[in-house]
Amino acid sequence: CRSYDITLLPGDGIGPEVISVAKNVLNRAGSLEGIEFKFKEMPMGGAALDLTGVPLPEETLATAKQSDAVLLGAIGGYKWDKNEKHLKPETGLLQIREGLQVFANLRPASVLPQLVDASTLKKEVAEGVDLMVVRELTGGIYFGKPRGFGTNENGEEIGYNTEVYAAHEVDRIARIAFETARKRSGKLCSVDKANVLEASMFWRKRVIAIAAEYPDVELTHMYVDNAAMQLVRNPKQFDTIVTNNIFGDILSDEASMITGSIGMLPSASLGESGPGLFEPIHGSAPDIAGQDKANPLATILSAAMLLKYGLGEVKAAERIELAVLDTLNRGFRTGDIYSAGNKLVGCKEMGDEVLRSV
Amino acid sequence: CRSYDITLLPGDGIGPEVISVAKNVLNRAGSLEGIEFKFKEMPMGGAALDLTGVPLPEETLATAKQSDAVLLGAIGGYKWDKNEKHLKPETGLLQIREGLQVFANLRPASVLPQLVDASTLKKEVAEGVDLMVVRELTGGIYFGKPRGFGTNENGEEIGYNTEVYAAHEVDRIARIAFETARKRSGKLCSVDKANVLEASMFWRKRVIAIAAEYPDVELTHMYVDNAAMQLVRNPKQFDTIVTNNIFGDILSDEASMITGSIGMLPSASLGESGPGLFEPIHGSAPDIAGQDKANPLATILSAAMLLKYGLGEVKAAERIELAVLDTLNRGFRTGDIYSAGNKLVGCKEMGDEVLRSV
Ligand SMILES: CC(C)[C@H](C(=O)O)[C@@H](O)C(=O)O
Ligand SMILES: CC(C)[C@H](C(=O)O)[C@@H](O)C(=O)O
Repeated sequence: CRSYDITLLPGDGIGPEVISVAKNVLNRAGSLEGIEFKFKEMPMGGAALDLTGVPLPEETLATAKQSDAVLLGAIGGYKWDKNEKHLKPETGLLQIREGLQVFANLRPASVLPQLVDASTLKKEVAEGVDLMVVRELTGGIYFGKPRGFGTNENGEEIGYNTEVYAAHEVDRIARIAFETARKRSGKLCSVDKANVLEASMFWRKRVIAIAAEYPDVELTHMYVDNAAMQLVRNPKQFDTIVTNNIFGDILSDEASMITGSIGMLPSASLGESGPGLFEPIHGSAPDIAGQDKANPLATILSAAMLLKYGLGEVKAAERIELAVLDTLNRGFRTGDIYSAGNKLVGCKEMGDEVLRSV
Repeated sequence: CRSYDITLLPGDGIGPEVISVAKNVLNRAGSLEGIEFKFKEMPMGGAALDLTGVPLPEETLATAKQSDAVLLGAIGGYKWDKNEKHLKPETGLLQIREGLQVFANLRPASVLPQLVDASTLKKEVAEGVDLMVVRELTGGIYFGKPRGFGTNENGEEIGYNTEVYAAHEVDRIARIAFETARKRSGKLCSVDKANVLEASMFWRKRVIAIAAEYPDVELTHMYVDNAAMQLVRNPKQFDTIVTNNIFGDILSDEASMITGSIGMLPSASLGESGPGLFEPIHGSAPDIAGQDKANPLATILSAAMLLKYGLGEVKAAERIELAVLDTLNRGFRTGDIYSAGNKLVGCKEMGDEVLRSV
């Protein structure tokens, strides 16, 4: 019997509800595959701010580092919105990404046939969309220095940040993207703004250099403004997209909204070694927190990514993925993905139905 | 009889075709309103590179500066794609924006009832969309210094750019945005990434400060990733959006694609004083250049913006806007907006029909 240490970070808003459901699903899938999980629940985000005064307590990071994988619910809420930067829940998220060195953020966006109507795009445009955004997560303008506030040569107030990429940062995310594309359709689109930004020209140069290692993958390049358009015009043209931290933030959210069901979408953040960080892409939804209305499927599918990408437990992962599909086929829907003719359920009941299908 | 000097920059690809049509429309609308235009055609972009070796010849900029308004077709093409940065057509565009100090880029995106089917969004989501993106155009990461290539403290190659805004740069674009919102529905949404970037925190702080001058305008703030989603989910929630150069580049293209008819969309770039720069938002479309297939309506509507925002000739502008609507109502369509039951026409014929309607 294999055993893994999992750090659970329920976080804020609907986070605790969806994590509790996903934990049960992990346990069930694990027990059927001879896997044992030891869970440690740690505070993070607003919950940690209230408890300890910081958004990522040292102990939480230390526990996460020592574990085999980290499953995060969601963080943030109105309550902490006006906090100074170092006391924002979001800062805790950036700190754990940096602390775990999870530089590769994998965000799948696919339109399930069962949910094609949830998209605001026309059926013929939305159906069959199945793409993966590989976002660089620990570099670029999010972490670049110098940054801050100051005055310019005219004595005027300014705010500034630095977009910067070093060769090894582009190379390693490019390799992850090429590997990902190779396992999918073999098509990789690198998105940048190389017609304007030096950081993007450098990005493109390194991606092209790494492409030599992957002659079987077809590499194309697209400017970020065009990519934002093409995702709306014809999202099916994309298979794997690789891009920098800020463009990835924007495009992966756009891509996920194109599916119409962001309550369904998981993500994985991976490093060279050490535990990965797995989380639904949706936020903490404070307006429905504690009401048993949240859709737990994104977190359940994040648990499946944890098994597959974090632990190499592919069979257990597939059990969960199939269970989610089966539950949808049996007509169960939370409010966010509900359509007439289906059965409206809450967070817990949806979890129970997935447990049945595992 | 009022007389204006207009600089025409046909540029590359379909640029010359659409400019020639728009020039005729300007002349007709002008003559009906007692306005005379003196046109000067100057090289820019790839055309200028071929002719003079630079993408924006000094003479072109000087002529533009001395004129009352500038109408640009489109620039760029495969031929110059691999050029070094300072020899790219795009660089000419950035240079003329900087040279004319046109810091405010107004990009309307509206879905005309006649063309609602052109959108990839469901009819109920697309119909009635009518928003305006006010993009900062001469600052931020496009122009920030330091920028370039170098090595970091580990001796590793890097590429970098600086996102920077000074107080007066945010203040002036904010004022334009508030004025714009005031003339529209009175709702302004400022888009930033203030949960991560100092440049965005500063942006938000200045926008809030300027808001005190416009108590009648309702100001909201949205993170850029969320804005990219909301444009897909429910674009009707937006009226006026104000944002920085790079976010504006991405979001305005996304917004324009949501209309499904980017061949229809004009833009205006304005400074504190001096001539404005008016151009369609579509590119040079090299694949259909010279084939009389281009949709000239975006350039014609840019000419209307030139009249309204550039010269204060509101009546002549409205003549053109109404003529475009009338032409659509009479069923004329270029290929990009064609749907069954309408009359397919080329660029010139579309221009002739608009002329009839002026
Ligand atoms: C909360 C925020 C800091 C974060 C980001 O910008 O990375 C979020 O938008 C995301 O995409 O995970
Ligand atoms: C061509 C390019 C430099 C330009 C920009 O990025 O500003 C274009 O995308 C635009 O939006 O006008």
